[in-house]
Amino acid sequence: MARLPGLGPRSARRAVLHLIQKRGRLMQPLAQAMQQVADSARECVHCGNIGTADLCDICTDDRRANGEICVVEDVSDLWAMERSGVFKGRYHVLGGTLSALDAIGPEDLRIPLLVQRVAEENISEVILALGATVDGQTTAHYIADELAGRCSVTSLAQGVPVGGELDYLDDGTITAALTARKSLS
Amino acid sequence: MARLPGLGPRSARRAVLHLIQKRGRLMQPLAQAMQQVADSARECVHCGNIGTADLCDICTDDRRANGEICVVEDVSDLWAMERSGVFKGRYHVLGGTLSALDAIGPEDLRIPLLVQRVAEENISEVILALGATVDGQTTAHYIADELAGRCSVTSLAQGVPVGGELDYLDDGTITAALTARKSLS
Repeated sequence: MARLPGLGPRSARRAVLHLIQKRGRLMQPLAQAMQQVADSARECVHCGNIGTADLCDICTDDRRANGEICVVEDVSDLWAMERSGVFKGRYHVLGGTLSALDAIGPEDLRIPLLVQRVAEENISEVILALGATVDGQTTAHYIADELAGRCSVTSLAQGVPVGGELDYLDDGTITAALTARKSLS
Repeated sequence: MARLPGLGPRSARRAVLHLIQKRGRLMQPLAQAMQQVADSARECVHCGNIGTADLCDICTDDRRANGEICVVEDVSDLWAMERSGVFKGRYHVLGGTLSALDAIGPEDLRIPLLVQRVAEENISEVILALGATVDGQTTAHYIADELAGRCSVTSLAQGVPVGGELDYLDDGTITAALTARKSLS
């Protein structure tokens, strides 16, 4: 239990004790649910999302075939995009970012598959929703180079987060927000 | 001492005790420095920045007369912009934001003075560096309307902050970043 992310040895002991005390009402159903998910969950062969079939719900939904692919690092980022509910197209989960330090190259990620999807499906725009970290931006530029000339490639805007006050922002964000300032008039 | 922002009664007692114990080496110089600043500090009549003369250092620096005015809410925001070091023009400190709840109207802020500066100085662009809060954006739109047709009005970009990961962002920021996405190809 202590190997779960976010649970230290102490919290793990608390959780385990709680489970043992409620073993009929909580532990049994949880164990069964886990067994069920462990048996049925798999990666979508197409986009890398997690689902119960070879193709995930988003890839089989025809209403989402609007010619847009949103590229994310991880399934958690896909969930974040879905929570905002503003993107109506399909996804492509890379499974990480390029990283020279960890020796992760394009072949270790699902980048060749993305290039193949752009060639085969009727894709007009690839939106790179990668983190504004060094590795994320490196990956974004690599993919933009790979897809140059095949379809339009865009990335999420950088700037002040909603609710953000200037005084609490770092220099990099202020610089990015000032460089990418937009006209109001 | 407990009336200072960020100091509760407990921290204030600690600070006071520390001051009393070091009264020769710390309290005396601090008291003198405070007296000096209290006597000499004043608001710049031009931009609202804090300085030691009627006109602040930025307003008297001819190299900063590049036709750009950056509008900020408060002196702390001006300091944040200066820390990033990327803006080379002059500032205009509003002294707050429009707020219907607190009954703060345009006359309570330095907005009329801004309109006057745009008319008198050779201003090509006003950059609204206001917070991405409701009041900040209301103020930005009010100023943009006031200055419409007189000069170009821009605002800081909204989006993913530098170093930000998608999973930790709120829905509003993801929506703003996706709406304002920019082309890489």
